[in-house]
Amino acid sequence: MHHAADILLTLFVIFVAAQIGAEIAQRIKLPGVVGEIAAGCVIGPSLLGWLSPEQILPGTPLDVLAEIGVVLLLFSVGLETRLDDLKKVGKSALLVGVLGVIIPFVAGALWAHGEGFEWIKSMFVAAAFVATSAGITARVLQQLGVLQRIESRVILGAAVIDDILAMLLLGVVSSLQGGGSLDLQSLLLTLAGAIGFVAIIGWGGSQVMRRRSGWLEAPISPHSALSVVLAICLGLAWLSTRFGLAAIIGAFLAGMIASETRQRKELEHQTLPLLSFLTPFFFVVTGAKVNLAELASVDALLMLLVATAIAIVSKLLGGFLGSLSLGRRSATIIGFGMVPRGEVGVVIASLGLAAGVFSDRIYAVVVAMSLLTAMVTPPVLAWLLRRGNPGEATG
Amino acid sequence: MHHAADILLTLFVIFVAAQIGAEIAQRIKLPGVVGEIAAGCVIGPSLLGWLSPEQILPGTPLDVLAEIGVVLLLFSVGLETRLDDLKKVGKSALLVGVLGVIIPFVAGALWAHGEGFEWIKSMFVAAAFVATSAGITARVLQQLGVLQRIESRVILGAAVIDDILAMLLLGVVSSLQGGGSLDLQSLLLTLAGAIGFVAIIGWGGSQVMRRRSGWLEAPISPHSALSVVLAICLGLAWLSTRFGLAAIIGAFLAGMIASETRQRKELEHQTLPLLSFLTPFFFVVTGAKVNLAELASVDALLMLLVATAIAIVSKLLGGFLGSLSLGRRSATIIGFGMVPRGEVGVVIASLGLAAGVFSDRIYAVVVAMSLLTAMVTPPVLAWLLRRGNPGEATG
Repeated sequence: MHHAADILLTLFVIFVAAQIGAEIAQRIKLPGVVGEIAAGCVIGPSLLGWLSPEQILPGTPLDVLAEIGVVLLLFSVGLETRLDDLKKVGKSALLVGVLGVIIPFVAGALWAHGEGFEWIKSMFVAAAFVATSAGITARVLQQLGVLQRIESRVILGAAVIDDILAMLLLGVVSSLQGGGSLDLQSLLLTLAGAIGFVAIIGWGGSQVMRRRSGWLEAPISPHSALSVVLAICLGLAWLSTRFGLAAIIGAFLAGMIASETRQRKELEHQTLPLLSFLTPFFFVVTGAKVNLAELASVDALLMLLVATAIAIVSKLLGGFLGSLSLGRRSATIIGFGMVPRGEVGVVIASLGLAAGVFSDRIYAVVVAMSLLTAMVTPPVLAWLLRRGNPGEATG
Repeated sequence: MHHAADILLTLFVIFVAAQIGAEIAQRIKLPGVVGEIAAGCVIGPSLLGWLSPEQILPGTPLDVLAEIGVVLLLFSVGLETRLDDLKKVGKSALLVGVLGVIIPFVAGALWAHGEGFEWIKSMFVAAAFVATSAGITARVLQQLGVLQRIESRVILGAAVIDDILAMLLLGVVSSLQGGGSLDLQSLLLTLAGAIGFVAIIGWGGSQVMRRRSGWLEAPISPHSALSVVLAICLGLAWLSTRFGLAAIIGAFLAGMIASETRQRKELEHQTLPLLSFLTPFFFVVTGAKVNLAELASVDALLMLLVATAIAIVSKLLGGFLGSLSLGRRSATIIGFGMVPRGEVGVVIASLGLAAGVFSDRIYAVVVAMSLLTAMVTPPVLAWLLRRGNPGEATG
């Protein structure tokens, strides 16, 4: 009867640490997620060691809970986003997505080459500079209640495009690194697959739901609409990984589809307790992945600062230039919204380490850079969004 | 970006299987849990093999999700149970708990001895006949909306007492098996610890919450009352394992404490989506643990049938005799409510296997018996509760 006792203690510690972190952050006027990520840093292997490195490896219960947490988070963000809203900002989102990939990639490659990496390896390192993690920005936007603003929509649309392009880029870089040549045909096929997936699910799914959400409450299904859409969420989260995309893209699409149903408001309401319970695991585990020990030298810290500055400025520039047509202030908000690399950068760095491209130090630097961008963004974003009333609030 | 893709597919399969199983069960007028457990049997290692035996071992992500699911389930049952309600049925619950431990233990030991085990090993086997798993009955009572009935309260109160006694019994049997002598003093200390834990948390916690639930909504805590009580739930679930009790006892107490707050109704409402999402993992994983292959002989099947019959009749008798003062019909309901052994029997069997007491066959038989009692109970209980209007519905 004692099974799983240890994990219960760990869950308790993580959950309480997240609440305390969020509470402290909010008292000093920072968004709650910053506190949750910082709490992860504190209780993680680098400081208190209440979480061991083994406990947060991929595939462990905590990692799975974290994954479920971010999947549900993006699902709930999708629930507050309708396809029509995204369509209106399509052109800006596309530009932000494309420039937000190209500029950080070039900047990252130049930096890595300057640090002594050969070009192909530099491109691998640069890939970690590219992919925006939508989770952190999405949480900030959601908690500030500004998901309906035009900037939020551009960010969410651009995050989908960003993920498609980053996925392609990582594919190209990995195959170059593996000594393969660039197979343009298979590359185009991958691109077509990813775009096709997003388009068919996003557009087709919305159509189906708009017309047929009656069946969600028909007597034929005594199960709640919630169970049905949660099943769709898990299914699409998995399916999107089959097309090379992040699970959260599928979850976001699932939420967007579900937002077309008549039960939308009820679903939004029912998703909140799921978020309260599960997203803290995502943010705390994310924070726990920083390895402060590897960064305990002036050299490494300097390297980290430069890398982080490049990561922030390049992404900010991409987002800013891509959405300049919306005005400078909105463009600044969008630029900052795209900055967090979060867990996606961590994953690419892990791939690089496994492929022998990354040294331990560059791994630690890239991971810390990814998480620093994630921690810096929320306060800036919150500050930008709170002052004045920029952007048209449509919808 | 492909990490955790496999687990997402598994989560999707489990979740959908649970929905389909529950749907089919309800169409043929069986409680949904039966369908969920059966779905686990079907997709588990014995039949389709979509879940491998390794995926459902203790400590795996699926096992942890299942544990969280049943912890939240008992928390929500606790939310619908007030200490005063339990106190009113204290004497019956105590009798049911005590007789419901003694009779199955004696019957199980006699059966195991008859099967050729020496006495001390027989007592170990008998321990698996003892502990009621409150999860399955609780879910049936909750879904039928009869948690306020007197029978439900007796069952829940007795389940707590049952767990304390079963824990002690397992401690005694394990130490005898390990060649140790019976240390009466340490036994009394353990008993005092468990009773003290339940009393202090249950009574003290209720007092505190009744008087001070204001702080849950005070401006000092911007976090929702839900997060606070979920933290208490995880904490008490862990703490109760430290006193040798099942995690679900602590979760139940946490719910009972929370039911004294002003936010009770809101909390009940917010817990429902958590149950929809997480309890299916518990029931499907429970079902997946049956190993049908070990039972594929006439001998083994016969042994299973006899063991299951003894397990059902002995527990039924204990519950019936213990609550006869409430009338025959109520006593029958209570007796059947105590029948499921579920995952607790599985855990004791695993301990026995690890200690070298159980053969592979007796292990398979005890596991299958535990799960059969869990599958037989819900339909009978639902049928008993639906006909006529027995029992006083207080509250």
